[in-house]
Amino acid sequence: MKIRVGIFGYGNLGRGVELALANSPDMQAVGVFTRRAPETVKTQTGVPVYAASALESMQKEIDVLILCGGSSTDLPEQTPRLARLFNVVDSFDTHAKIPAHFAAVDAAAKAGGKAAAISVGWDPGMFSLARLYGGSILQDAKCYTFWGKGVSQGHSDALRRIEGVVDAKQYTIPVESALARVRAGEQPCLSTREKHLRECFVVAAEGADTARIEREIKTMPNYFADYDTTVHFISQEELNEKHGGLPHGGVVICSGETGNRNKHVIEYSLKLDSNAEFTSSVLVAYARAVYRLWQEGARGCKTVFDIPPVYLSPKSREDLIAELL
Amino acid sequence: MKIRVGIFGYGNLGRGVELALANSPDMQAVGVFTRRAPETVKTQTGVPVYAASALESMQKEIDVLILCGGSSTDLPEQTPRLARLFNVVDSFDTHAKIPAHFAAVDAAAKAGGKAAAISVGWDPGMFSLARLYGGSILQDAKCYTFWGKGVSQGHSDALRRIEGVVDAKQYTIPVESALARVRAGEQPCLSTREKHLRECFVVAAEGADTARIEREIKTMPNYFADYDTTVHFISQEELNEKHGGLPHGGVVICSGETGNRNKHVIEYSLKLDSNAEFTSSVLVAYARAVYRLWQEGARGCKTVFDIPPVYLSPKSREDLIAELL
Repeated sequence: MKIRVGIFGYGNLGRGVELALANSPDMQAVGVFTRRAPETVKTQTGVPVYAASALESMQKEIDVLILCGGSSTDLPEQTPRLARLFNVVDSFDTHAKIPAHFAAVDAAAKAGGKAAAISVGWDPGMFSLARLYGGSILQDAKCYTFWGKGVSQGHSDALRRIEGVVDAKQYTIPVESALARVRAGEQPCLSTREKHLRECFVVAAEGADTARIEREIKTMPNYFADYDTTVHFISQEELNEKHGGLPHGGVVICSGETGNRNKHVIEYSLKLDSNAEFTSSVLVAYARAVYRLWQEGARGCKTVFDIPPVYLSPKSREDLIAELL
Repeated sequence: MKIRVGIFGYGNLGRGVELALANSPDMQAVGVFTRRAPETVKTQTGVPVYAASALESMQKEIDVLILCGGSSTDLPEQTPRLARLFNVVDSFDTHAKIPAHFAAVDAAAKAGGKAAAISVGWDPGMFSLARLYGGSILQDAKCYTFWGKGVSQGHSDALRRIEGVVDAKQYTIPVESALARVRAGEQPCLSTREKHLRECFVVAAEGADTARIEREIKTMPNYFADYDTTVHFISQEELNEKHGGLPHGGVVICSGETGNRNKHVIEYSLKLDSNAEFTSSVLVAYARAVYRLWQEGARGCKTVFDIPPVYLSPKSREDLIAELL
């Protein structure tokens, strides 16, 4: 019997989850749940759409629920509330608030007799695993995380809030010379500015003061002031044509020494055409794992650190040992 | 209380395990066990040396035993025999024989009420994990494994068995153009010859027929005949000076598409100055995990696929979630 999956939220992430489920031989999407009027939402593969309020009456139809909302306001409220009723998976990515979110979801899932996994995606998620494996193998390991080249949606949004900006995209780009030093096993001490560049493509309103816009961008605290930032003013057509996608990726590099000064460098990298669709694919694999763990009696909140990799694959343990080990 | 570790076998791997344990805050080496006369073996950090026959009387002193023998004759006999008496970890790396080895160790460990992990290292081991994670996230993933640039000890041994060869080192080298195609997400079909080159540095005996040696190398079945192989004749001094180490490494690249032709490439790579010392470090991390799992009630044989990553680190789960997730 296939694992029956609910999708809560139907933005980029929810749409990606729907497509990933359509490709999963052992899973099926039973419904998309939305806070919009259901009749206004059309799914890509014909999955039925329900109002979010219908969820609570569908506990018997859903084995695991994938939460596809945002980390700032949706997930802190939704995941703990729904973890009491469903096995759930989310991609909560506000690093500093993960311990509090974990505690809330853990308590709810235990109270409801359910299993959950939070902060599933690529960072947090696969990159966290790379940091943990690397740091556990090499005792004196130093692990560096570089993001990009890729579009940061938060930074693109920040650009669009500036007066006179019609549209914009921001790329986060690792500094090549820093990458090279880390790859050589040097373990340098790098400032924020030394690790990443920020490149902005901005469509200005007609007659807007581009010098003022550029100044506002480069001095914006938290977002740009600590970085070397370049700003390009381009037309809306050029933005649509050349900067339409949401590619991302990055690399985790751990280096350390063993024995008599033998250096080791472990590198995990991702090059993603679609940030959201990759995150969705990770969510689906962990939804499979959470449901199977729950079937075996696991309760409470898990992270990627807690979940044995064998649970992620639709293949049997015997096949995985024979084929991949 | 520290985890008390026994080291069985004191070649490159056993020596690496001893050094890795000396750097592990939560573990200590309680003894090296050898089939040589114990008084002829001197350890690097003062760990006491015992005869292999002393092992069975030391069950109470050892929490987990790391088996550092070879895969061809040592481990198939030792791991099942000792898994009945101790929690054990080995680096059994004959891929085709892993399922049989697993079954033997699993039966022994269950009979003795112990936990075991086999085939721990970098391939099998970390590379197997990269193949499993990558293949589970991307449904249509194709995963490629390239080894090198690094010294293959099996191939170096094969060279040294040729008449007229005094000493030799063989490097396995990935074909750059094949790597580039795989990294671009192309999913090409690659023959053995298209994936790796073999480069040999050979010290010939005085007066030996180097043309005959070169011919014998290049036509040697299984080892060299299926590869593009280059042979360099050099002096023993040059071999010692330039090819004295045992560096290795390689890369696992998984690529696949999601949604509307969005391509994703996941890459896990290792650059290792010392093949044996890195493998030793992986063994020590998994020895920690096996002992903790056994303490929690786990019995039988595990692989890297079965072990939750959190058990590999000396840090607490709470710290790992706060610091690395």
